[in-house]
Amino acid sequence: MAAPYELIYYTGVPGRGEHVRLILEEAGAPYQDTQFLSFDEARKNVTNWLGGGGHGNPPYFAPPLFKHGDLVISQTPNILLYLGPKLGLAGSRENDLYRVNALASTALDLLCNEVHDTHHPIAVMMPYEEQQEESKRRSKYWVQNRLPTVLAYWQRVLKNEGRGSGPWLLGDTFTYADLVLFQCLDGAYYAFPRALKQARESGKYDKVFKHREDVQARPNIAAYLASNRRQKYQDWGIYRHYEDNDVVAE
Amino acid sequence: MAAPYELIYYTGVPGRGEHVRLILEEAGAPYQDTQFLSFDEARKNVTNWLGGGGHGNPPYFAPPLFKHGDLVISQTPNILLYLGPKLGLAGSRENDLYRVNALASTALDLLCNEVHDTHHPIAVMMPYEEQQEESKRRSKYWVQNRLPTVLAYWQRVLKNEGRGSGPWLLGDTFTYADLVLFQCLDGAYYAFPRALKQARESGKYDKVFKHREDVQARPNIAAYLASNRRQKYQDWGIYRHYEDNDVVAE
Repeated sequence: MAAPYELIYYTGVPGRGEHVRLILEEAGAPYQDTQFLSFDEARKNVTNWLGGGGHGNPPYFAPPLFKHGDLVISQTPNILLYLGPKLGLAGSRENDLYRVNALASTALDLLCNEVHDTHHPIAVMMPYEEQQEESKRRSKYWVQNRLPTVLAYWQRVLKNEGRGSGPWLLGDTFTYADLVLFQCLDGAYYAFPRALKQARESGKYDKVFKHREDVQARPNIAAYLASNRRQKYQDWGIYRHYEDNDVVAE
Repeated sequence: MAAPYELIYYTGVPGRGEHVRLILEEAGAPYQDTQFLSFDEARKNVTNWLGGGGHGNPPYFAPPLFKHGDLVISQTPNILLYLGPKLGLAGSRENDLYRVNALASTALDLLCNEVHDTHHPIAVMMPYEEQQEESKRRSKYWVQNRLPTVLAYWQRVLKNEGRGSGPWLLGDTFTYADLVLFQCLDGAYYAFPRALKQARESGKYDKVFKHREDVQARPNIAAYLASNRRQKYQDWGIYRHYEDNDVVAE
């Protein structure tokens, strides 16, 4: 029997672990997920793996972790990179894996890490309340200056017809990078609903918002999103909605 | 004749492109490097590739870019991932590539991206002078709270003897993750010399500072660092020394 896929992460919010769930759900691959532990048990379990789990695995810095047999690895794009080819979601041409990894990494940089930093601009380990003023300033600048640049980039990728006129980041070929962009934009929507609504209604990024709907409509993804395996965003974790930060561009 | 390796990046600072240079230099692999263009030409060249260069390559968001034949890819860890196995620097065991990529990505997150953000806490596109107060606050917190956590992590990786007692991140096996950690720590030294000196003298992270010396002493790296191909840090780019930010932990 093949070793199971095991996601080791916190529970209570989708978080970065969500990217791992989405690729497995899209592929219909069975997996174990620590999200069904209690909050405290899941946290303790993450700590238990701090040493890397032996078998030549180095200690890791932060979850999500992914275990497959004796291999235990960290870093979201790295886990996706491991799974992508196994699940047939890493492209169709020679070296597509590197194109897909670049797109997935860019989505995580721009719409996961940078959005996280809107509520933690001074330090990841400092409570939000102690950096609220800076958070407001960063959020306003993000909405007004960065978000348009970021959406314009994804619109540019989706308009590129070098790989056919299909709706995906690689044209006709659906890959896990599409799932990453979907999840990142979904989280940004939760954090900045007013700004994203304004951007959608501007019509300038039609392909980006259409892409989100197209991913959402894929049968396995739609079924997953409607299931109890999909956790809700909360006001902790990567994507948080703070009234003060949810501004619109002027 | 095999296609040449081509690094497409800005010129004038080591920057993120430096990680690509170091892996190629360590392996003694010939490569083309746009750093020998003028500043303006290099910048214009980066812009010329915005569309991804055809051949099924998607548009990219930010350099460094790497070209090998028809393939053009972005994202520093992704470029290293492409080169690592070709250059024999991605480990010795099955699946080591994912262990090495996790380590390299973690070094880039903690000691490149987070150090960059000490001088740009509010927005990457906003001049430093407009976020100087926040930069001071972030730098102080980084030195006092984050740096010890980060150095303790690398000390923990280097103390892990699951792969032999060698000085590298994977014990006896030297990989490109060692080059990434070296370059990140080298940049952090430039930005925060007082804090790094204090950390070194504390003796708590002896393996981390020894690791830096061991990488620096590798013959190809030593020759490269002494050559005119190694660019100097400047007060623009990722690593910047600002007197105001260069504090010590209390």
